[in-house]
Amino acid sequence: MSRLSDEERRVVDAVDEAWTLERLCELVAIPSVTGSDAESDAQHRIAGWLRGLGMDVDLWQIDLASLSADPDWPGQEAPRDQAWGVVGTLGDDGPTLALSGHIDVVPTGDLAQWTSGPFDPTVRDGSLVGRGTCDMKGGLVAAVAAVAAVAGAGVPLTGRLALHSVVSEEDGGLGALATIRRGHLADGCVIPEPTGGNVVTANAGALSFRLTVPGRAAHGARRAEGVSAVEAFMPVHRALRALERSRNLASDPRFGGLALPYALSIGRVLAGEWASTVPDRLVAEGRYGVQLGEPVTVARAAFEACVAAACDGDAWLADHRVRVEWTGGQFASGMLPAGHCLLGDVQAAVHDVTGSRPDERAAPYGSDLRHYTAAGVPTVHYGPGDVRWAHAPDERVAIAEVVSTARVLALLAVRTCGAR
Amino acid sequence: MSRLSDEERRVVDAVDEAWTLERLCELVAIPSVTGSDAESDAQHRIAGWLRGLGMDVDLWQIDLASLSADPDWPGQEAPRDQAWGVVGTLGDDGPTLALSGHIDVVPTGDLAQWTSGPFDPTVRDGSLVGRGTCDMKGGLVAAVAAVAAVAGAGVPLTGRLALHSVVSEEDGGLGALATIRRGHLADGCVIPEPTGGNVVTANAGALSFRLTVPGRAAHGARRAEGVSAVEAFMPVHRALRALERSRNLASDPRFGGLALPYALSIGRVLAGEWASTVPDRLVAEGRYGVQLGEPVTVARAAFEACVAAACDGDAWLADHRVRVEWTGGQFASGMLPAGHCLLGDVQAAVHDVTGSRPDERAAPYGSDLRHYTAAGVPTVHYGPGDVRWAHAPDERVAIAEVVSTARVLALLAVRTCGAR
Repeated sequence: MSRLSDEERRVVDAVDEAWTLERLCELVAIPSVTGSDAESDAQHRIAGWLRGLGMDVDLWQIDLASLSADPDWPGQEAPRDQAWGVVGTLGDDGPTLALSGHIDVVPTGDLAQWTSGPFDPTVRDGSLVGRGTCDMKGGLVAAVAAVAAVAGAGVPLTGRLALHSVVSEEDGGLGALATIRRGHLADGCVIPEPTGGNVVTANAGALSFRLTVPGRAAHGARRAEGVSAVEAFMPVHRALRALERSRNLASDPRFGGLALPYALSIGRVLAGEWASTVPDRLVAEGRYGVQLGEPVTVARAAFEACVAAACDGDAWLADHRVRVEWTGGQFASGMLPAGHCLLGDVQAAVHDVTGSRPDERAAPYGSDLRHYTAAGVPTVHYGPGDVRWAHAPDERVAIAEVVSTARVLALLAVRTCGAR
Repeated sequence: MSRLSDEERRVVDAVDEAWTLERLCELVAIPSVTGSDAESDAQHRIAGWLRGLGMDVDLWQIDLASLSADPDWPGQEAPRDQAWGVVGTLGDDGPTLALSGHIDVVPTGDLAQWTSGPFDPTVRDGSLVGRGTCDMKGGLVAAVAAVAAVAGAGVPLTGRLALHSVVSEEDGGLGALATIRRGHLADGCVIPEPTGGNVVTANAGALSFRLTVPGRAAHGARRAEGVSAVEAFMPVHRALRALERSRNLASDPRFGGLALPYALSIGRVLAGEWASTVPDRLVAEGRYGVQLGEPVTVARAAFEACVAAACDGDAWLADHRVRVEWTGGQFASGMLPAGHCLLGDVQAAVHDVTGSRPDERAAPYGSDLRHYTAAGVPTVHYGPGDVRWAHAPDERVAIAEVVSTARVLALLAVRTCGAR
């Protein structure tokens, strides 16, 4: 940390590991599955923390009805009765650095594959295990800990440090959109999504889709007289695999050789309602990667053409078309403007805290980044955790990475918003 | 009808088409989906009818707890709080002919594929359309109409005519088992399941199964790092298709050249819980045909060996085995003892009512027949409807076939139980 001024060192050293871990455990214990009421519980908890740190806090109930009429409405997969926004601000004016994180998590999946309870945070081998630890309560708590360090070190700011806590990132990002529409913009934004030590300057998009494949019911004993929607799905599935291959032949070097930056993944399948009846309908839901710079409309057209061609080539589907719906989260791709200084600022802060300079990377998943970049807020990801744990059983984050991220964010804050 | 005695003619002519159709509409309007409370409503309705026809009626609540301990317990797919048995008897002693039918029906399937409401019986082109019309409220009402004709014609019986109305045929047949365990046996039994004009003397069995295929969850954006349970299922599905082919290479001539008398059909598939998470579990439920004369244990072993071999041959499944469970309806195969006179008696009655002699056939599906034959009651199917409508949208039965079946059953009754 030889490159730090005394003031910077004071802020970086003010990050408190025990306090940070305690907050993280507290947040992981709230089962804030996207769309659940616990999202609101988590938002109120965060608002309380930020007030405790001396931030001005804007805690508001999002007007879902009017937001859903917004042209950039990203959809949602888990319909909500309520949703809350939380923004804390430190400092009065000047350039604003926003740290933005989502408090929602994906469902647990098969509980049998978890070693400990998903919402019962457990320390193991230096990591905290639990749903959302990696994606991204670890990062969000690192941002809160950075605010605590800046506030606690008593460094007066020349600019403003804002913390955005948002809901619904996992199913589209209406929380981030609502935050932006409320006027919480910034001159730069860091989202501490898990980046495994790198800085992410671009996100592929991801469009949630639903396919409805028709079959024809019959008694299972005479299945040859019906048409199984499960079997009818198979040629469509093969066609989508071929589409995925063709869309991944060339990709941005920032993906670092990742095999499938634009993955097409079927996440849910439901077919039939009775063991001995030939299923008359299959519904498959999945996510479909949008290429960097590719308009969403172009990506959708390629997908729809692929499904249509698969139907054309199938005796049953030719006259019983598969329906494609774009439902749930609709993530455009997004990126930091080329050459923007935020990348270098973050890389420098990481280097000055950790001693090594992070690589620039692109992430294959959509995130709230594209809401910010679409609103003109230069945004990157830098945060703790290996994204392979995201959405996985025994999800975890290394505690040391959470603390180190808090230090990086605190240093970045004091460099961009202060000290006076 | 030249072969009929005056008394027989009087009984056959006593079948009342309008009364029969009215009863059938009334019964179809009760949505007695297997396992639903409406099963009980339908049983009470039938009991009322039988009392009205002068039958001695045994209406009892089935003791499900003790029945489930029976070694022949057939399983159930739709857990019940209650289940009722109904047996009506006409005549005091002597040889007993039982007519047995089930009042439960399968779920409606996709409502969009129905032209009229499944429980809103509608006459169209001489048929009644609605869930259960073919399988087998048409047959059950034909049996009731036969009782009405025998009772109404005032023919004193030398034997006993019994009507068994049972629940749960669609999910295993606990209703028929309960009826038999209560002591309602017979010297011969006709089940008016849809036979399309033939007499069915043998049933293939059908075992409901559940496969649980493990995957490994991952974020859909990095699907290559997870294992999709949907994709893991595909080699298992292919192996089961091959098993089905091998089990259908040779079959009983009574199947009349049916391509797949021992069909293996996947009826339900559920996988994953989130569009953008690689699914960590797929559950597939289906029905698996048991060959005539094949013990259930042998059939199960062949299935389990097939799934095990598919797992052995797959890199992921070799260490993450597919679980096979035998859940829901377990139908052994069953048949009328070779050379039993009931076949000829039914064929003669059909001939004498319709003018044509029916063929002997086997049915590829399990039914309550095997409960009766296992209890030593010689049993056949003869009833109205084309089984292709069973479990299908716009299910229907020709009204003329219902009436004709009622005449055949009335004639058979008067020949085997009377006249004094």
